[in-house]
Amino acid sequence: MTYRAPVDDILLSLNHGAGLLAAAKAGHLGDYDLDMTAAVIEEAGKFATDILDPLNQPGDRAGVKLTDKGVATAPGWKDAYKQWTEAGWNAVSGPEEYGGQGLPLAIHSVTNEIWSASNIAFDLCPLLTQSAIDALHAHGSEELKAIYLAKLISGEWPGTMQLTEPQAGTDVGALRTRAEKQADGSYRLFGTKIFITYGDHDMSDNIVHFILARLPGSPAGSKGITLFLAPKFMVNADGSLGARNDIHASGIEHKLGIHASPTCTMTMGDKGGAIAYVVGKENGGMAAMFTMMNQARLGVGLQGVGVADRAYQRALAYAQDRKQGKAVGSTNTGSDPIIAYPDVKRNLMLMRGMTAAARTICYATAVAIDMSHRATDEKVRARAAARGALLTPMAKAFSTDISNEVAAIGVQVHGGMGFMEETGAAQYVRDARILTIYEGTNGVQANDLLMRKLQMSGGEAVWDLLEELSVIVREVESSNDPAFGTTGAKLRDAVASVERTSKWLLEKIASAPRDALAGATPYLRLFSVTLGGCSLAKEALAARNDESMQGDTGRYATLARFFAENVTVQSGALERSVIDSADAVNGADAVLVA
Amino acid sequence: MTYRAPVDDILLSLNHGAGLLAAAKAGHLGDYDLDMTAAVIEEAGKFATDILDPLNQPGDRAGVKLTDKGVATAPGWKDAYKQWTEAGWNAVSGPEEYGGQGLPLAIHSVTNEIWSASNIAFDLCPLLTQSAIDALHAHGSEELKAIYLAKLISGEWPGTMQLTEPQAGTDVGALRTRAEKQADGSYRLFGTKIFITYGDHDMSDNIVHFILARLPGSPAGSKGITLFLAPKFMVNADGSLGARNDIHASGIEHKLGIHASPTCTMTMGDKGGAIAYVVGKENGGMAAMFTMMNQARLGVGLQGVGVADRAYQRALAYAQDRKQGKAVGSTNTGSDPIIAYPDVKRNLMLMRGMTAAARTICYATAVAIDMSHRATDEKVRARAAARGALLTPMAKAFSTDISNEVAAIGVQVHGGMGFMEETGAAQYVRDARILTIYEGTNGVQANDLLMRKLQMSGGEAVWDLLEELSVIVREVESSNDPAFGTTGAKLRDAVASVERTSKWLLEKIASAPRDALAGATPYLRLFSVTLGGCSLAKEALAARNDESMQGDTGRYATLARFFAENVTVQSGALERSVIDSADAVNGADAVLVA
Repeated sequence: MTYRAPVDDILLSLNHGAGLLAAAKAGHLGDYDLDMTAAVIEEAGKFATDILDPLNQPGDRAGVKLTDKGVATAPGWKDAYKQWTEAGWNAVSGPEEYGGQGLPLAIHSVTNEIWSASNIAFDLCPLLTQSAIDALHAHGSEELKAIYLAKLISGEWPGTMQLTEPQAGTDVGALRTRAEKQADGSYRLFGTKIFITYGDHDMSDNIVHFILARLPGSPAGSKGITLFLAPKFMVNADGSLGARNDIHASGIEHKLGIHASPTCTMTMGDKGGAIAYVVGKENGGMAAMFTMMNQARLGVGLQGVGVADRAYQRALAYAQDRKQGKAVGSTNTGSDPIIAYPDVKRNLMLMRGMTAAARTICYATAVAIDMSHRATDEKVRARAAARGALLTPMAKAFSTDISNEVAAIGVQVHGGMGFMEETGAAQYVRDARILTIYEGTNGVQANDLLMRKLQMSGGEAVWDLLEELSVIVREVESSNDPAFGTTGAKLRDAVASVERTSKWLLEKIASAPRDALAGATPYLRLFSVTLGGCSLAKEALAARNDESMQGDTGRYATLARFFAENVTVQSGALERSVIDSADAVNGADAVLVA
Repeated sequence: MTYRAPVDDILLSLNHGAGLLAAAKAGHLGDYDLDMTAAVIEEAGKFATDILDPLNQPGDRAGVKLTDKGVATAPGWKDAYKQWTEAGWNAVSGPEEYGGQGLPLAIHSVTNEIWSASNIAFDLCPLLTQSAIDALHAHGSEELKAIYLAKLISGEWPGTMQLTEPQAGTDVGALRTRAEKQADGSYRLFGTKIFITYGDHDMSDNIVHFILARLPGSPAGSKGITLFLAPKFMVNADGSLGARNDIHASGIEHKLGIHASPTCTMTMGDKGGAIAYVVGKENGGMAAMFTMMNQARLGVGLQGVGVADRAYQRALAYAQDRKQGKAVGSTNTGSDPIIAYPDVKRNLMLMRGMTAAARTICYATAVAIDMSHRATDEKVRARAAARGALLTPMAKAFSTDISNEVAAIGVQVHGGMGFMEETGAAQYVRDARILTIYEGTNGVQANDLLMRKLQMSGGEAVWDLLEELSVIVREVESSNDPAFGTTGAKLRDAVASVERTSKWLLEKIASAPRDALAGATPYLRLFSVTLGGCSLAKEALAARNDESMQGDTGRYATLARFFAENVTVQSGALERSVIDSADAVNGADAVLVA
């Protein structure tokens, strides 16, 4: 079945759950024209349905090939990329002075979800390009920007992000790729990078590589790394392409999923070194990397939302179509579609609820980042920046965790058919599995939430958010609406759990950091299921008063209730896991022997 | 890294957690000689390490091929199967009068875990053969048994189990394969079966197919189906093989996992019909199917345990070996192995704890079934039969659910390397994905637990088990051992949750069955995490007094504590989900629209 962008759900989440409407009306989003939102989303959905979705399964099957001329992508890929860039989709949020449309990151984020839902392997190319744009825009010299930025923003020349080496994964400071300065101010790079997404391909005339390397005599570890830009083809003074640079894909990986996205080993220095230019300052690579990484983390979270939504859509269609037996209480004469069975309903609600919660967390992250750049009031900007920073690890980790859970349930709903590759449901299980790993594993995200984001000004960003969530809780409770069931109580308990657990952790970070770290992952989950539950409730309240909503708006209360009673309800247990089990985690050495 | 059977963990689980020792000492296992246990397990482990494990990854890569001569298995497969049957491994629990070794199902179950851990695609052939043995032994005529049973038990002729048709999956009564009675008392079968595991292969001279079909004029649905036996090659009076029967593999599936296990479309009737013999009575197929299915469900649970254990072993080895950065509080001069990080420890403990809990649930199911056959006291037999019936859906569903969770964490521990197929961790994610589906989806298991097993004599089997669990809780609490942390309180709460939830469900099954069904899956999980938590605590208590245990026996208390504080602790939330969320599940129709 064909992907359809869930425009209603997206608008409700973006406008109300994530607060785009309120932010724009308060003037915190600059001159953004709210009338554009729905039109952009609908157009993106159309492109995804017509062009990207049909290539998804064939691309997964065909994969990519390494030839003498470099990496060949799957049939149709190059043409789709051309159409995509020509329609302006790569330039949605790019700065206008370099040809971008200057739309908020929030709008860009919605489109990112839509591309991922229809074709995550395709989405990876623009996702990495966006990171490159961010880094070059923030740290590059005017000269480099003049040559490369407009091409990156249009997508005519996609970018890559080259950090990882065999010994340097999460510990990027351990990298060994060597940079040598030349008399003309340029550099030569020598070394090998692994796991480079779209490191080479045939979809564009040129590729702009962003590479972390080490200069001789630099400090050890992450303080001694520098970000470089190296094009695949050198660029002549007139903008035409010149010689092939000395950076090549020397291998491609055989992966569990995202088969149509080339994951390359890149070799530099076979022919005298790759010609490269420093981006930012020498030994300033770490800061530049975080610029690249931060929005990429949100982007990966949105990939999680996209894949989850696609898995849900497919499972729903199957459950409506597939007939087996007779459900209890059925008055059908023939057999029932399996959606009539309570257990199948539960699975589908879990898929939809987790996807919707993750979506709003991601969109809210984007809206906060937008406000941190666009608001005129400095205090508003600072508060929004803290909010965006706090939400980013949850956007990344929670959304990608649930994408794996949702994709697995999607196969389950299909029964035996789900295990057959031709059905299409299994691909999402394979594709989603990388999302919890790349751009910082979810363990790294949990540590980031704890050790950086919670700690920021003694938890101020957390208390600020919890106050907002408490308002939602009171609104649900005072609505006295039976459709919410026990939602109010579940959310109230959860907010209290987050507060207590955050305080306990803040104390432990100071007194016994290993005890705090032992609970990082359940803390991230606790916070996310609380935030997700409150967000869905907020949307359910808003849906009733939003005249643009189609159909029975009470359905959003049912969804919020289901999520609160089945997911947010775990808050108390997660709190106990954080607080009780540090001893068992840190005392695990005697258990963890072969 | 190579698979090693975790003999210590297995013995502790089997003897103490699952109660093999007590059952044998009380004389409930007939003449079973306890001295055999360790020796059999060690020998099985050796065979798995030496023969099956090395074929696992190559088999996954090579897959199977459909040729003119039938299905060709991967290189080395045929030889391994020959060695395996010649070593007597197929005959472990078969009846002695037909050449079996007559060992308890519990011992057979341990070996099943070990084969699955080392090579789940291989294990599927004997798993299905075992179902065929059970059906033929319980329902077959003496004549059929004389010809086929010894060959099935030795494994010389493996069996198949042919139920599914395109329109008849979970609803097996919808099948259309047609049987026609012949003048000589035999039958001819016409039709197509799908998803037939090892439906054809080249590992043996003959294959004995067990096929559900429908006779003309039979009642509609499941009351009108009959079980037939049809050999691949006819058997002459002297036992030699005769003509090729009219049943052929006409297609093989391209699946997410278990690539080395052929999943066939079987066609009967191209040349006059497959010659077949009735097993049991005409229209008695449903009873025969449940005989086949019941132990197969336990067998699939053990596959879950095996795959989970293998994923854990691989992740542990990687975490001990892979060095990245420096953990908080580390006094190492160089970088630390990632196992030094609390978050990685947590992941590994979760893998090990869930695997150990599932293992004991499966073994306890087997011990109960053994007692139901071997005890001399009729009351003991009846109680054990009820226990085995109650535990079977949990053994199947919980073990296979956690196998997916554990396999996913296994990839996570490997970081980016885990996503690369050559690493080996990703295969477990692919392989495990079928386990929650075949032999009755886990949704079907949850319904079975609720509507059959809980309901049996008004919940008597549940109250009986909860009493035993309460004894464990008291022992943990009265041990006053700080190593248990908050384990006692967590288990006490959980047992109370199971009791309250069971009572609520019993009432609802009578008054509002759809409300009960809406909570079937969280109920199964609630029961399983409670039973698993109590089992691990029981083993921790026993380990201290078992002089045969190696190393620091206190490690089992740490594991039990970790599980109680991170998994069993979810009991309260699961109870609330069952009781609170029926309305949201059954009111989902307004939400579940495209």
